[in-house]
Amino acid sequence: MIPDPSPDLLARAAQVRRCAMALGQLDDGQRRQAVLAMAEALEQGSEAILAANQADLEAAAAEELAPALVARLKLDGPKLAGAIAGVRQVAELADPVGRRQLHTELDAGLVLERLTVPLGVLGVIFEARPDAVMQIASLAIRSGNCALLKGGREASRSCEAIHAALRCGLAASAVHPDALELLTSREESLGLLKLDGLVDLIIPRGSNAMVRFIQDNTRIPVLGHADGICHLFVDRAADLELALKVALDSKTQYPAACNAIETLLVDASIAADFLPRAVLAFGAAGVELRGDAAAMALGVSHAASEDDWSTEYSDLILSVKVVADLDAALEHIARYGSRHTDAICTGVAATADRFLAAVNSAGVYLNCSTRFADGFRYGFGAEVGISTQTMPPRGPVGLEGLVTYRYRLRGEGHVAADYASGVRQFSHRPLPL
Amino acid sequence: MIPDPSPDLLARAAQVRRCAMALGQLDDGQRRQAVLAMAEALEQGSEAILAANQADLEAAAAEELAPALVARLKLDGPKLAGAIAGVRQVAELADPVGRRQLHTELDAGLVLERLTVPLGVLGVIFEARPDAVMQIASLAIRSGNCALLKGGREASRSCEAIHAALRCGLAASAVHPDALELLTSREESLGLLKLDGLVDLIIPRGSNAMVRFIQDNTRIPVLGHADGICHLFVDRAADLELALKVALDSKTQYPAACNAIETLLVDASIAADFLPRAVLAFGAAGVELRGDAAAMALGVSHAASEDDWSTEYSDLILSVKVVADLDAALEHIARYGSRHTDAICTGVAATADRFLAAVNSAGVYLNCSTRFADGFRYGFGAEVGISTQTMPPRGPVGLEGLVTYRYRLRGEGHVAADYASGVRQFSHRPLPL
Repeated sequence: MIPDPSPDLLARAAQVRRCAMALGQLDDGQRRQAVLAMAEALEQGSEAILAANQADLEAAAAEELAPALVARLKLDGPKLAGAIAGVRQVAELADPVGRRQLHTELDAGLVLERLTVPLGVLGVIFEARPDAVMQIASLAIRSGNCALLKGGREASRSCEAIHAALRCGLAASAVHPDALELLTSREESLGLLKLDGLVDLIIPRGSNAMVRFIQDNTRIPVLGHADGICHLFVDRAADLELALKVALDSKTQYPAACNAIETLLVDASIAADFLPRAVLAFGAAGVELRGDAAAMALGVSHAASEDDWSTEYSDLILSVKVVADLDAALEHIARYGSRHTDAICTGVAATADRFLAAVNSAGVYLNCSTRFADGFRYGFGAEVGISTQTMPPRGPVGLEGLVTYRYRLRGEGHVAADYASGVRQFSHRPLPL
Repeated sequence: MIPDPSPDLLARAAQVRRCAMALGQLDDGQRRQAVLAMAEALEQGSEAILAANQADLEAAAAEELAPALVARLKLDGPKLAGAIAGVRQVAELADPVGRRQLHTELDAGLVLERLTVPLGVLGVIFEARPDAVMQIASLAIRSGNCALLKGGREASRSCEAIHAALRCGLAASAVHPDALELLTSREESLGLLKLDGLVDLIIPRGSNAMVRFIQDNTRIPVLGHADGICHLFVDRAADLELALKVALDSKTQYPAACNAIETLLVDASIAADFLPRAVLAFGAAGVELRGDAAAMALGVSHAASEDDWSTEYSDLILSVKVVADLDAALEHIARYGSRHTDAICTGVAATADRFLAAVNSAGVYLNCSTRFADGFRYGFGAEVGISTQTMPPRGPVGLEGLVTYRYRLRGEGHVAADYASGVRQFSHRPLPL
C-alpha cells in the first residue's frame, strides 16, 4: 500500500505547480539564461558539493555499500566539471517549446494553432548517481518544466548540496528557485506517486525493479522502461561476417545497457555455417551462450531454460535459438520481446522490409547494432529516457518528451450556432507553419 | 476488484493481436478497400441490422429503459444509412500510417527514420449507441488497427448484427475478419481492462462515471476524459456584446456536450455592466444561473455552493463568479478546471496572450465559443475522442490518435564500438522528410 502524500508534501508540490505556471510563460532566452545561471552556481558551489559527496562516500564505506553503487555515487572534480559542462550543453539545445505543429484557418478571422508547451511538473526518482540530478534539472528548466527531485538515500548529502547550488542559480534568473524541489525521504518518494494533478510525468532512473514498482503504483504517466529484451535475427540471406560483427557489438559493447541484445535468433538454414563461428567468437569475448537443443547441437555448451527467453541478463550472457524461418523469428520476438529494439541481418530487401514492418518495437534495425538505440546517437542532443510503451513518446526520448501541446483558437466573436445553422461554413484552410 | 480475463477472452485477444501484426503490414489502398467493403456489407446487412435493433428496442420497452437511452439505442433506416455514409467518409480520410516524422543520416550508410505505425489493438467500450460501433470500427481499420468492441447490453442484438456485417465486409478484403472482435458480457468488458500487452489503447464512449471507472481500473492508456469543466472569463477589456454572444453559445448551443461551459468568470470592474445583461439573456434562454455573493448582488438569483465550481452540469445551468482580475480568473481555472477548454473575451492583446499562455488546458480560446473544441470543427475529418490528459494526444483527437511511431535504422554492418573508439563520427545530417 502506498501512503497518501503528507500535507507538507502536498503544500510543497502545490508551490512547485504555481512556479510551473510562471515558468511556462517565460521565453526561450530566459530559460536558457536560467540554465546557464545554474551551471555558474554549480561551479561556485563545487567545493561544497565535493565535500558533501565525500561525506556520502564515507557513510557508504561505513555501511559497506556495494562497490558498483559506490562507483556511481562518487563525484570527483573532473566528474563534477563534466556534469557542469553537460548543463551548459543543455542550455544550448534548441528550444522544444512554442513550436507550431498545426496552423489552420477554420473560417475568416477564426484561426487554430497547435503549439508545443511544457508539461508542467516532472517527478524524477533516481537511485544513487548525484550527477543525474544536475542533468535532469537542467533539461527540466530548459524545456519550461518544474521538477520534484528525489535522489538515492546514499547520495542525500550530495543531492542537497547540488540542490542548494541549483536554487542559487535560479535566484539569479527569471525562474523562481522553488521550481526545483528536493524530496529526501522514502515516504516522500512514495507520496510523489500519488500526486496526480500536481505532477504530469514521472521519470525513474534506476533498476528495472524500481521502474516496475513505480509503473505498478502510480496513475501518473511514467517515462521509462522496465525491460530491455532486445533480439538480433540472423536471416538465411545474411552476410555472415557482417552478422557476426553486429551480434558481437550488440552484446558486448556495453552489456549492462538496456539496448544490448539478450537473445540471438538464427535461421535454421544457415545455423550450421553461422553458429560454430559465433560460438568461437563469443567464447573469445567471454560471453556465455545458452542455447536451445538445435543450438547446442551446433556447439553452444549451456542449455537455455524457458525463463532465459524473457531474461534481461545485463551481463555477458546470451541466449541462442535456432528458428525455422523469418516467421518463427517474428513470433518469438512478439512473444518474448519488450518492444525496445530488435534487429535483423539480411541481404534481401523484401525480408528486411517484412521484419521492419512486422516487429512492433520502438526501434527496428537492419544490418546494424542495437546499441545505436540512444538519444545522443540519434542526434537528439540529450536523452531523457527510453520508453518501451506503445503510445508516444517511445524509444529514446529527447527534450521533446518533456513538452506536450495545446490548441490555441483566436476568433472575433465566432459562435458554433452559426455553423450548425449553416449561416457560416468552415474553410479549414491550411496556413503556413 | 476486477476479475482476471477468462482463458477464452485471452485466446480471442491473442488472435486479434496476431491479426494486428498482419494488418500493420497492409498498405493504404488495402486498408481503404477494407473500409469500403465494410460499408458495402453493412448496406447488404441493413435489413438484418434494423430487425436486430427493433428487437433491442422491444426489449428496452419491456424493461422500461429511460427515454434518453432509447433514443440513443434507436437505429432507423436513415440513421443507419447516415452511419454507412460515415464509414465511406472514413475510407476517404488521409492515411495516418507511414508518415515520416524524422529522417537523419547518422553516418554514411546509416540512416534513421521515424515513421508512424498503427498502435495495434484498440479496446473500445460503448454505452448503448450502436452507430458508434460502425464509426470506431472503420476508424480502427483505416488506421491499421484491430479492435475489441464492447457495446452496451441494451444494444447487444444490434451490435451482433453490425459485427456480423463488418466481418462479412472484411472477408472480402485483405484484412482478416478476426481483426474486429465483439465482446458481449460485462465480465468480458472488465477482463478487457486487464489485457495489458494485448490491448494498446482503451477508448471509452459513455458517461463520465464510466470513463472514470475505466481510468481507475486499468494500466492500459485510456483516450478520453471524465470531466469537461470549461470556463469563459469576461475580462474588463472585453467587448461586452461579443462576450455575451460567446457566453450564450458556449452554454446553450448544446449544453450536454463536454465543451460547453459550466462556469462564467466576470471581471469585477465590468460586472455591474455585464451581469445584469447576462442575467436577462440567460434567463430568456432558459439557463439557471448560480452565483457567488457578488454575482447575486448583480441579479443572479441562485446561490452557488463550493461544489458548483467543480460540477459538470451537462444541462442549462451555469455557475457565475465575479473575480478581481485576470490573475484571480487564472487561479480559479487552475483550481477547478479539468484542462479541457477555457476561453477569454478581451480586447487587449497582452491580456489575451497572458491567458493563452497561462491556462494549461488542451484548448485555450480567445473571443470565440468553447463549442469549437471538436475534431470535425478542427478539420480532422473524424474524432476518436477528446483527451484531457496532459501528455499527447490531448484535446480533440483525430485519426492520428490511433497511430504511434517507430524508429527504423538501416545500416551496412555499423557497430557502436567504432563510434565509442573514435574510429568513426556521427554526422547527424538531416535528410528531406
